[in-house]
Amino acid sequence: MPGRVVSMRLGDLAAVLEVRLEGDADRTIIGVATLRGANPQHLGFLSNPRYRRDLAGSAAGAVLLRDGSDCPHEFAGARLWAQDPYLAFARASRMLHPLSSVEPGVHPSAVVDVRASIDPSAAVAPHVVIGAGAVIAAGVSIGSGCHIGAGVHIGSGTRLHPRVVVYDECSIGERCILHSGAVIGADGFGLAFNGSAWEHIPQIGRVIIGNDVDVGANTTIDRGALEDTVIEDGVKLDNQIQIGHNCVIGAHTAVAGCVGIAGSTRIGANCRIGGASMISGHLEIAAGTEIAGGTAITRSIREAGVYASVFPFMPFAQWRRNAAQLRHLDELARRVRALTGDAPSQDPDE
Amino acid sequence: MPGRVVSMRLGDLAAVLEVRLEGDADRTIIGVATLRGANPQHLGFLSNPRYRRDLAGSAAGAVLLRDGSDCPHEFAGARLWAQDPYLAFARASRMLHPLSSVEPGVHPSAVVDVRASIDPSAAVAPHVVIGAGAVIAAGVSIGSGCHIGAGVHIGSGTRLHPRVVVYDECSIGERCILHSGAVIGADGFGLAFNGSAWEHIPQIGRVIIGNDVDVGANTTIDRGALEDTVIEDGVKLDNQIQIGHNCVIGAHTAVAGCVGIAGSTRIGANCRIGGASMISGHLEIAAGTEIAGGTAITRSIREAGVYASVFPFMPFAQWRRNAAQLRHLDELARRVRALTGDAPSQDPDE
Amino acid sequence: MPGRVVSMRLGDLAAVLEVRLEGDADRTIIGVATLRGANPQHLGFLSNPRYRRDLAGSAAGAVLLRDGSDCPHEFAGARLWAQDPYLAFARASRMLHPLSSVEPGVHPSAVVDVRASIDPSAAVAPHVVIGAGAVIAAGVSIGSGCHIGAGVHIGSGTRLHPRVVVYDECSIGERCILHSGAVIGADGFGLAFNGSAWEHIPQIGRVIIGNDVDVGANTTIDRGALEDTVIEDGVKLDNQIQIGHNCVIGAHTAVAGCVGIAGSTRIGANCRIGGASMISGHLEIAAGTEIAGGTAITRSIREAGVYASVFPFMPFAQWRRNAAQLRHLDELARRVRALTGDAPSQDPDE
Repeated sequence: MPGRVVSMRLGDLAAVLEVRLEGDADRTIIGVATLRGANPQHLGFLSNPRYRRDLAGSAAGAVLLRDGSDCPHEFAGARLWAQDPYLAFARASRMLHPLSSVEPGVHPSAVVDVRASIDPSAAVAPHVVIGAGAVIAAGVSIGSGCHIGAGVHIGSGTRLHPRVVVYDECSIGERCILHSGAVIGADGFGLAFNGSAWEHIPQIGRVIIGNDVDVGANTTIDRGALEDTVIEDGVKLDNQIQIGHNCVIGAHTAVAGCVGIAGSTRIGANCRIGGASMISGHLEIAAGTEIAGGTAITRSIREAGVYASVFPFMPFAQWRRNAAQLRHLDELARRVRALTGDAPSQDPDE
Repeated sequence: MPGRVVSMRLGDLAAVLEVRLEGDADRTIIGVATLRGANPQHLGFLSNPRYRRDLAGSAAGAVLLRDGSDCPHEFAGARLWAQDPYLAFARASRMLHPLSSVEPGVHPSAVVDVRASIDPSAAVAPHVVIGAGAVIAAGVSIGSGCHIGAGVHIGSGTRLHPRVVVYDECSIGERCILHSGAVIGADGFGLAFNGSAWEHIPQIGRVIIGNDVDVGANTTIDRGALEDTVIEDGVKLDNQIQIGHNCVIGAHTAVAGCVGIAGSTRIGANCRIGGASMISGHLEIAAGTEIAGGTAITRSIREAGVYASVFPFMPFAQWRRNAAQLRHLDELARRVRALTGDAPSQDPDE
Repeated sequence: MPGRVVSMRLGDLAAVLEVRLEGDADRTIIGVATLRGANPQHLGFLSNPRYRRDLAGSAAGAVLLRDGSDCPHEFAGARLWAQDPYLAFARASRMLHPLSSVEPGVHPSAVVDVRASIDPSAAVAPHVVIGAGAVIAAGVSIGSGCHIGAGVHIGSGTRLHPRVVVYDECSIGERCILHSGAVIGADGFGLAFNGSAWEHIPQIGRVIIGNDVDVGANTTIDRGALEDTVIEDGVKLDNQIQIGHNCVIGAHTAVAGCVGIAGSTRIGANCRIGGASMISGHLEIAAGTEIAGGTAITRSIREAGVYASVFPFMPFAQWRRNAAQLRHLDELARRVRALTGDAPSQDPDE
């Protein structure tokens, strides 16, 4: 979100970023921009060679480039040579566009239980509700209309945007960011069928979120049935994700938007899960696994690697013909075997 | 959600559950737990034989087991023999972990129209808004920040967690549970194209929800265009589900997370719809149908059964090769027919 | 949503709709209905010939029919002959079921920054929060519990249903409708990996929404990373849609529920995107493209047309056999080539 804008001398910026400067160290930089949108007070970056021609015509005052690459001579600005220009750009942007600070204090319209403990440096916006026994640590910011249940703990420096709900007894670590509409700790989908109707199974676990975790807008994380649902340190969750009860998401795993992870699945550390994937329940996914967008994971992955399952898209008429044959693929394979004399496969997981 | 904890004598628990006890009837049980997490005051259960080795080493004071199965002799606790140990466990858990009761009354920060009727035993939390003509029955609990539109009826014993929105004129039955972020009765996606732009079609139907229905966090159910969208008794909806206008979901059907059901589809009673499935509009799904997770239902299902459509996931390089051939499957089938002399299939639904 | 009901003389209704009336011009019509649900004071319509038999038995006072079609003689009501009966029906419905008007003024429980500007004809419901510098134009209606960030602009006649969040600096045009739970302007998923953890990239762009745009319940639109996310005039977004940072959605494009569009994708004007589709990031989709429900678009579409990718559903046992063969399709194709002597395809996009 746009916050205050600060300006920096280019030489100072290069020093803090630990990158090599080629150009005028006294130039003033007031922000970051795309190469096309930049003006002489902006810093741009080139990470993907695909955008190289944008650099030639860019008015940017300076650009971050990869060590060892070359810069088109038409570009008039300064060069900052970095090992990882995208990462250096992220850091420059955080310095030039710091988060706006929040004013400490509890808005008079907030309804805070007398048994809650709120650090004086925390900010509680209008129409917030905070339950008995909740602990809100230093520097926390709770956006307007959030509901913080009884017994919830929120670690220092964490920011909740407006209209986040955290159910009773859940815990959120330090320096987390939760976006609007996120729901933490609703009941898992725990039901037993009695022959004519579904009966509830109380969801007595919690959601435990580590430090430096992001939760996107309208993402939901269910509380555990018996034990806790756990989101480890550094996990990044995009918008509209659903995480079922008892899941464990390993440290620094990143999950893109619209992913559904069914209950009791354990995902290892440092995984990257593409958008709109779905992962069935009671699975184990090895640390470091990458899953392409739109993939359906229906079985545990024991070995890290890149996995995919999407049906390739095509013009409708072509799809119709191919999909028709897909319904008879087993038969087709059998005919080919009859012609060639090979042995059959029968398991979709083989 | 964790509520009060109550303790029970094991003999009494067995009697209420109508299960056979083998062991010390005077043992005190204070809660349920997983076999691994249990201590001697906990009741565990074994339903899936896969977890049998957890039982041998479990410290649980008692375990629910299936009649006729065997229990490892290493297990030191009491045995409770049940026909359906999972169902008995659900019932034990509800007794040992009852929902916390809510205090009746309307919080002074709630904005309630003078023409609304609220039973004195109902609880209305802070920052709730209730419109003209709304009727809130006995024992209802409305969580903080909920919006209850004009003319809404909410049946006795129903609980709305914080930040649920119910649009005007919708009706919710008795003993329902609606989780945070659920939106009931927003306009259906009703549009007519006039050659250059989309024009609105007023959505004058309502959403009618029966008794004992659960609605998960951030699930949305649209109001009908002309007639009502209907969710029958005992339906269980998980999180992040979208139900389009004019749908009818039959009694005791359970729908897992992230499912989308397009408008005017009628789903029969006692169906089980797996997570992340999508169901097209204007279809009929037979009662008792089971749909595997991730399945795309594009045509009516007249006969109950189990249906699936997911593309099996595989390592990326293998997926790439197979997906490439899928684009030419019709041609491949044609070649094989040329070799064998068979007749073609042409319809993806055949 | 149901609003006031008005009545009209059938002759007047036909004149305003510019359709030819065959029947009693003095009949009074008080609303629209389905052919089955209609009574003699209702107007129905027949657009899809599939419902022709409903017309024969309908009690409707009048029906909209397509010019040149025929009407069963059993139908006793008046006929209104239209070029596009569905469009005429939409217009009739809007006249007969107008939106309820909102009472101007700011509810005393709303928390409005003194530096915000609110037109006296705008309506601000209870528990709304409006930040510094926000501009709320004439006739705007802000539902209960909405959060309007600092610097936000909302154009005249726009309606926000309860619990919408608009983050700082975003802009919404005129005559838009935003449904409950929509989140506009949360941070995009912008991260750089530093070798051990993810680092944030500030999202300094905004969301800019044009005129006559609809945003469904619980839909999320992320703010741009460096430039803006843009939703052009007349775009219609259903529920539970996720639009990533920097996307541009062209004018009058309609997107059905549960669609995910990853960051930096540009969709042309007048596209129709089916429900539960997913569109990868950094793509371009040609104006006028139609995408079938459940399709995964993983590559740019340069040429308008209809595209699909869904795996056809089938009984589970049949699916299992066919899916097993799909894992070996490349090998199968190779064997057939060995029999016929053709050249291979290798790219899933070819």
